[in-house]
Amino acid sequence: MAKSPAEEHPKKAFGWAARDTSGVLSPFKFSRRETGENDVAFKVLYCGICHSDLHMLKNEWGNTIYPIVPGHEIAGEVTEVGSKVKNFKVGDRVGVGCMVGSCRSCDSCSNDLENYCPKMILTYSAKDSDGTITYGGYSDCMVADEHFIVRIPDSIPLHAGAPLLCAGITVYSPLRYYGLDKPGMQIGVVGLGGLGHVAVKFAKALGAKVTVISTSPNKKQEAIERLGADSFLVSRDQEQMQAAKGTLDGIIDTVSASHPLLPLLSLVKTHGKFVLVGAPEKPLEVPAFALIGGRKTLSGSCIGGMKETQEMIDFAAKHNITADVEVIPIADVNTAMERMIKQDVKYRFVIDIGNTMKAST
Amino acid sequence: MAKSPAEEHPKKAFGWAARDTSGVLSPFKFSRRETGENDVAFKVLYCGICHSDLHMLKNEWGNTIYPIVPGHEIAGEVTEVGSKVKNFKVGDRVGVGCMVGSCRSCDSCSNDLENYCPKMILTYSAKDSDGTITYGGYSDCMVADEHFIVRIPDSIPLHAGAPLLCAGITVYSPLRYYGLDKPGMQIGVVGLGGLGHVAVKFAKALGAKVTVISTSPNKKQEAIERLGADSFLVSRDQEQMQAAKGTLDGIIDTVSASHPLLPLLSLVKTHGKFVLVGAPEKPLEVPAFALIGGRKTLSGSCIGGMKETQEMIDFAAKHNITADVEVIPIADVNTAMERMIKQDVKYRFVIDIGNTMKAST
Repeated sequence: MAKSPAEEHPKKAFGWAARDTSGVLSPFKFSRRETGENDVAFKVLYCGICHSDLHMLKNEWGNTIYPIVPGHEIAGEVTEVGSKVKNFKVGDRVGVGCMVGSCRSCDSCSNDLENYCPKMILTYSAKDSDGTITYGGYSDCMVADEHFIVRIPDSIPLHAGAPLLCAGITVYSPLRYYGLDKPGMQIGVVGLGGLGHVAVKFAKALGAKVTVISTSPNKKQEAIERLGADSFLVSRDQEQMQAAKGTLDGIIDTVSASHPLLPLLSLVKTHGKFVLVGAPEKPLEVPAFALIGGRKTLSGSCIGGMKETQEMIDFAAKHNITADVEVIPIADVNTAMERMIKQDVKYRFVIDIGNTMKAST
Repeated sequence: MAKSPAEEHPKKAFGWAARDTSGVLSPFKFSRRETGENDVAFKVLYCGICHSDLHMLKNEWGNTIYPIVPGHEIAGEVTEVGSKVKNFKVGDRVGVGCMVGSCRSCDSCSNDLENYCPKMILTYSAKDSDGTITYGGYSDCMVADEHFIVRIPDSIPLHAGAPLLCAGITVYSPLRYYGLDKPGMQIGVVGLGGLGHVAVKFAKALGAKVTVISTSPNKKQEAIERLGADSFLVSRDQEQMQAAKGTLDGIIDTVSASHPLLPLLSLVKTHGKFVLVGAPEKPLEVPAFALIGGRKTLSGSCIGGMKETQEMIDFAAKHNITADVEVIPIADVNTAMERMIKQDVKYRFVIDIGNTMKAST
């Protein structure tokens, strides 16, 4: 018989898990593996709440394994390293993002794109290489192969850096890959949430003129004054949208709710790039003419490889980029989920794991 | 009062036109402008029948101006050149494709991409710079600015070269622009019609391994034996499609009938490119996950610029590429349209204008 989560590994761990599709989180005892020779173990201090945590908690993508301990924006301090670990030592400030493993030998892995490896292992609710289930960062400790550990530069506070490990790399990678990183480019960011607000910061740091496109007119002031966007379009304002037609070199669309794509595609110049990083559940409706007429590109991007993730956070340190966060105690995590649904957060909840998560025994 | 088509210009011209949405073509007297200082006039010898001619004849895209003389795969022999014409002389073998004008000063025009100029003037059923309506190649003579004239190399027979001016450049340009032109690449071609069959030839000449994807199993032998494709997939055969998942670097989709995109997208490798050159009327349904998961690109492409069109036909000459055509007399043009709807053509109808189009007076 398979061992229980609390017994399958030698090291005790404590987190908060959901047991069913209600998605409600509550205290959960489980275990972590011993620190292997290539492993880095760390004490979790902060963990961001990503919108996909919520999808996964409720099994909205159909692949959840219960009990689930979510969390893939994890930051903390190294407590132990394996004998063959080269790049980390006890006390280092580190993080783990969306993945903790990959095959390390396929084309994608060979090209530092572990995120596209067919055998990539997600940080939580996935089957690990030893057959046990992975548990995420809503927990007191983590252990992972050093290849999947990111060094967090000293200038980045851990609580505000944690969300970069998912939200940050998700928007940084496509800006680079699709060539939307040239100074002076006109870049649009659709949606001003956890992903969108860091997209604005990265695009600005890369030298772009940034236009935020949102359904909410009341986000304009913040977008411009607080986040440094250059302009703001209300996507429901047809006059504004018409006037901005064909003005953008590229768009990063962070919205995961269903939304009409055609008006957004029309904002893009000839040969422009439209990149989806949010994934609406329903298929998008795309008129072929909207792509053919201006040789436009509609594409996707999914987080980033480990090398690029380190590059992203080093770039963030250099340009003073962090996420804007609201730090909450673990006891408020279920309320935070409710508030996130209502978009009542600026712009990322981060759980103060270090100070508020205590095992009851 | 506006002058009639037969009187608005000084030079008599004769063609076949449709007068209404029946799309039925019949003899039509009109006129062409005098050969201007930058113009090349030529006797039309052959004109290909493109599927878009049929859409336009019936006003299926809503922008037809009647009477309409279609035809944008036009080949013939120069009869007169203007005083400032540099590159052509009487007797030269030339052609005109989908456009006869553009602004010549915008970003697109400055980058040899007249095909994406917002003021690009289509070869037929469009308003020319002098306010008159353009008439296409189902007619005995043409005149156009030399910038929009293509030289047809001696080794390419005019009847088999004419379709390259639309079908050829439509598939050649995206193979180049999207980097699908590297020897050894795995390239898919969806649909084996006028565009598809030349796509196979160009991709092969560029050194690709070519897979034809079609709904018709009976096209397999032809695709491989006659056109040189390396393999063939029946898109309705789920087993075949499943086995070919993630094997192609790129796909050129030439199908303009509505068709499910997801199974085709799944054939493309991670980071692969899927290019639409056929434009179904209904919006395509694209699940965001299909693009995000493998960082795939769905894009469009619309003919090509004049410089690239010349490059394409020179490349075709070098590699002995022509279209496979069925030459018909103009009297059979309406029947040919009916047959084209039934896909009863291998692979392009070309009208023998020189020998069969005679003005009745």
